[in-house]
Amino acid sequence: MENNFLLKELEKHKKLLSVTLLLNSSLEPSYIYKKTIEAITEIVNAEVGSLLLYDEEKDELYFHVALGEKGEIIKKIRLKIGEGIAGSVAKTRKSLIVNDVKKDPRFFSKADEQSGFVTKSILCSPLIYRDKLLGVIQAINKKDDENFSNEDLNLFESFANIVSIALENAKLYNKLKETFFQTSFALAEAVEKRDPYTGGHVRRVTEYCLAIAEELGLNKEEKENLELSAILHDIGKIGIDDAILRKPAPLNEEEIETMKKHPQIGLEILKKVKHLSEIVVGTFSHHEKYDGTGYPLGLKGDEIPIIGRIIAVCDTFDAMTSNRPYRKGLDDNVAIEELKKYAGIQFDPLIVDAFIKAFQRGKIISQSKREKIYEN
Amino acid sequence: MENNFLLKELEKHKKLLSVTLLLNSSLEPSYIYKKTIEAITEIVNAEVGSLLLYDEEKDELYFHVALGEKGEIIKKIRLKIGEGIAGSVAKTRKSLIVNDVKKDPRFFSKADEQSGFVTKSILCSPLIYRDKLLGVIQAINKKDDENFSNEDLNLFESFANIVSIALENAKLYNKLKETFFQTSFALAEAVEKRDPYTGGHVRRVTEYCLAIAEELGLNKEEKENLELSAILHDIGKIGIDDAILRKPAPLNEEEIETMKKHPQIGLEILKKVKHLSEIVVGTFSHHEKYDGTGYPLGLKGDEIPIIGRIIAVCDTFDAMTSNRPYRKGLDDNVAIEELKKYAGIQFDPLIVDAFIKAFQRGKIISQSKREKIYEN
Repeated sequence: MENNFLLKELEKHKKLLSVTLLLNSSLEPSYIYKKTIEAITEIVNAEVGSLLLYDEEKDELYFHVALGEKGEIIKKIRLKIGEGIAGSVAKTRKSLIVNDVKKDPRFFSKADEQSGFVTKSILCSPLIYRDKLLGVIQAINKKDDENFSNEDLNLFESFANIVSIALENAKLYNKLKETFFQTSFALAEAVEKRDPYTGGHVRRVTEYCLAIAEELGLNKEEKENLELSAILHDIGKIGIDDAILRKPAPLNEEEIETMKKHPQIGLEILKKVKHLSEIVVGTFSHHEKYDGTGYPLGLKGDEIPIIGRIIAVCDTFDAMTSNRPYRKGLDDNVAIEELKKYAGIQFDPLIVDAFIKAFQRGKIISQSKREKIYEN
Repeated sequence: MENNFLLKELEKHKKLLSVTLLLNSSLEPSYIYKKTIEAITEIVNAEVGSLLLYDEEKDELYFHVALGEKGEIIKKIRLKIGEGIAGSVAKTRKSLIVNDVKKDPRFFSKADEQSGFVTKSILCSPLIYRDKLLGVIQAINKKDDENFSNEDLNLFESFANIVSIALENAKLYNKLKETFFQTSFALAEAVEKRDPYTGGHVRRVTEYCLAIAEELGLNKEEKENLELSAILHDIGKIGIDDAILRKPAPLNEEEIETMKKHPQIGLEILKKVKHLSEIVVGTFSHHEKYDGTGYPLGLKGDEIPIIGRIIAVCDTFDAMTSNRPYRKGLDDNVAIEELKKYAGIQFDPLIVDAFIKAFQRGKIISQSKREKIYEN
């Protein structure tokens, strides 16, 4: 073989290897999508790369990401399996080179018409993992007016293989996380339902917490920890007797003291879970107060984990604005005034600020507002 | 560059790429360990490969897998960070070539002395992911009495990088799964504790189910589904009132009817969890009977999902052998006779057989047996 050819092949394989490491260094699908599209152009020297994902339920392909200004238009396009070049590749599960799309009757011209982009040539490979179709990748317009070659095709198929594995791992990881969170939520809701007057509390507190997280700019991991904490914040109520939990009237002093044990019970339940030790302390500090007069530990200010400080505000707002058998919920604006009044006393002022900003942006939808939406 | 050299380099990179795909095609650490060790010898043409994992708590390295007859001896060896060539590499986080170990004072000769293996040369690289030490890999004895070269070292470092990423993904996945299962278990135990007389039931039923799974030769996924089902099988008791759940006496007919709703309640709670739909039907069929006279649906024979048939046997055995405030638990052998008697009527005979085999192998440790172990 010629030296020059070997050098090029070696370069390409080195490139493939570095892309593989890159794609596998994350279990976040959106990251893998982005890096895949970026890599396509480099690997086979094309103008543009695109990734179409397979929607199993609808048996269709859709563009997950389309870079550039026409992205929004492209994103809406859906192809039936068998439709267009991408659809044909998905159907036959065989790669295709089409070096002059105008001459190919399979070419789906709508994307070009709508976006103003001019497609000349396409190299397209299916993404398959253990016989399961995940999508297709396309390299569009070989640069320097050249044609896509069979070597390009071989390389592109190796790349498709790499993408498929990275995507499948990310999917498995995210599916597991979703199942974990949904199971926790289902169990938390079931605990909540023992008290027929608190329906929807866990869901609303979780939503409010995530709205605050958005305002505070928390990262993905922090958001996930907060979400799980919010889901589980009242789980300790498993340990409270029916007689107290379901009392359709205000609790007496002794009952209040018993009820106050729920964060401690929650902590006892979940502290055995090895990898939750970081978050449980926060989760079950949601009844601490900023001035140190809360429970169970009487922590003060920043001693209270941020997770606890966030849940405290959301929990109280929902308690104030929700109806109880013995009283109607407060109006949202009255409740907001209460939060402001107790900022620095009961609540972290920064968290109250973030909550109010989220409220003003319409991200906080209280129980009564939800009911109004239902009525209309 | 020389043609021959380029060809070899290309071959090696192709090999690396295919190994990368192989390692990333599983999220199972034991698979990755095995494939890593196998690949080491091929990649740098060595006699033997070994993998040492980092034990963070003890700040030591240990051989995870050692192939061959001396494996068991090697497995027990632990190296302090800094000790031996592997320990030095872990400490400095830099790869090392030692082409004549006898001349290197760092060489840790105990492994050779104990195993009878003769180490001549070592190529060793650290496994690092985002600044975190995961372990080291070693290629031992370059074949054909050659020396390990700098090209070997470069290639080995690329390989170490690949292994690190694959291992880290597998670790993350398994950590998440562990957290999910432990959280479910903690919540299931908390539900169980509402009834002070059923302590340890969930744990024992889960253990019994896994013992049966072993007898039946279920695969990893089936075992995991069964484990989660066993953990959650009584979760519907969240919806049963204290008055019934805690009654320290046999239930009357009306109470029994209410109690019988727990599988249906469990199903209602968990059916919203998208990816659990496959298992919940099994989980909450553990009160169906083989002859069709059970509840909630009155399913018969193989209509009852296997998960339900397995839990049924384990659940009943534990109920029979556990103490209640109003009666002492049955002797294990009496309970086994009961299972045999109702095989084909209440229980799937094949599952009863598997249970008895597990019992005979000492894998089923009933509540009273546990208490005896405690006493002694």
